[in-house]
Amino acid sequence: MKTARKQVVRWNAGRAQRVTDELAIEEPLDIRIDATPLLVTMRTPGHDEELAAGLLFSEGLIRSRADLRAVRPNARNRSGNSIDVFLAPGVEMSHSRMARHGFAASSCGLCGKESIRAVHRRIKPVSSRLKVRAELLGRLPEKLRGSQPTFERTGGLHAAGIFTPEGQLIVAREDIGRHNAVDKVIGFGLLNGLLPFDKHVLVVSGRASFEIMQKSLAARVPIVCAVSAPSSLALEFARASRQTLVGFLREERMNVYAGQARVTSNRYFVTFNRTKR
Amino acid sequence: MKTARKQVVRWNAGRAQRVTDELAIEEPLDIRIDATPLLVTMRTPGHDEELAAGLLFSEGLIRSRADLRAVRPNARNRSGNSIDVFLAPGVEMSHSRMARHGFAASSCGLCGKESIRAVHRRIKPVSSRLKVRAELLGRLPEKLRGSQPTFERTGGLHAAGIFTPEGQLIVAREDIGRHNAVDKVIGFGLLNGLLPFDKHVLVVSGRASFEIMQKSLAARVPIVCAVSAPSSLALEFARASRQTLVGFLREERMNVYAGQARVTSNRYFVTFNRTKR
Repeated sequence: MKTARKQVVRWNAGRAQRVTDELAIEEPLDIRIDATPLLVTMRTPGHDEELAAGLLFSEGLIRSRADLRAVRPNARNRSGNSIDVFLAPGVEMSHSRMARHGFAASSCGLCGKESIRAVHRRIKPVSSRLKVRAELLGRLPEKLRGSQPTFERTGGLHAAGIFTPEGQLIVAREDIGRHNAVDKVIGFGLLNGLLPFDKHVLVVSGRASFEIMQKSLAARVPIVCAVSAPSSLALEFARASRQTLVGFLREERMNVYAGQARVTSNRYFVTFNRTKR
Repeated sequence: MKTARKQVVRWNAGRAQRVTDELAIEEPLDIRIDATPLLVTMRTPGHDEELAAGLLFSEGLIRSRADLRAVRPNARNRSGNSIDVFLAPGVEMSHSRMARHGFAASSCGLCGKESIRAVHRRIKPVSSRLKVRAELLGRLPEKLRGSQPTFERTGGLHAAGIFTPEGQLIVAREDIGRHNAVDKVIGFGLLNGLLPFDKHVLVVSGRASFEIMQKSLAARVPIVCAVSAPSSLALEFARASRQTLVGFLREERMNVYAGQARVTSNRYFVTFNRTKR
């Protein structure tokens, strides 16, 4: 259940009416590591195991599925908003890393370039030779929306989807938090033994930020597409990570901000290198 | 400088062309308290003193302007991405509170209701009798956009604005992070002695979440308007805080999710209580 129905007052041209509206659910999730609270994050309930596993993996706190002994709802909490992660014997995790940077920012640099270098010290750039046709990429947002019924009703949820190079959807997840939706699809991959996503395309419904790129790199995704704008640091991250970054993805048009070599077309012979500005 | 110009490849109907695109700048900001690093957050540079002061205030780590001795760029860091906050003598701040919940989630409950109660233990609900006409609210998003030139060019920035009940803009700020934009307008109020904003309207360009509501309550804002959807918990928070929450705000229409009594109209006599669903 991702939505809640509420009585609201709808104003239209000066008139007010009581109507029922459907809202995206936001609830806290308490993530615990070996029974010690790690952090609380707001999220849309559902796929919480994937969220917890994906977040720990994408932030570099665990390295593989093998680091996890179990991920399951905290049986002592009846709200459904607490999840237990148990690490495999011998695995240690730096709580201080989380404490230092907070949940939202895992960079440890004082400028964007240093933030990128900090990530690259633990995750190397991608080297995939994957190529995908621009026409195929253009159809992915519609496929993602087709798997995202809640947004239509609430306008309040972000989505992330992992696709094969043939455009087949492997997994899509929705959440009020953009990062959560990405963590959930990565967590799905981790828990189901599908990582790395190194022959895959990640599509996000909103913008692409540093954090989205960092998470995608952790999962080894070579092509990241955003329906909306990327930030300057997302672009710099993608170039330094040799990832392809596409923004403003529409059926017939898109901007390729990095890694152009992975985008081809069977309709035109592309000569952009010689095109005047 | 909030944007960066980059060479990108624009695909349109199968053709690729090199063009110059303008991207919203994202850079890390290191916030230090009395020379001790507190957290790193990604943000759009500019108004960093407001961001730091607003964040500390809206998260309950400081209580008033008097708790601050100085807020200024860290002179030893040349990147411009480090800000020093010095507390007034005798003021102590709980670093562990930040560490426990991370930057993004300051709730400490295990369900939404507990998260709301946790905030209300330190900030009481609003009691403002402010009334604003629906027609006036409908004009605020356009006024906010008028003060937000960067979004038009990049599609990548959120905005927050504080308005008087007469619809006059007091301050507007843009940032790649929704919460940062709100922290900046609250920080502006704090540093300029304008708080509480208890006769004011806050307008945000995107969605309204628990965190946005919590920050607005810290600044005592009675009316919060979002151009996009609120979450379920934002609605519950607003009702428990006796705040007015408006969503999907357009010139001629809007949804009032909480605190309907503060919204009036001079065009129609409103009889919504007797209107059938």
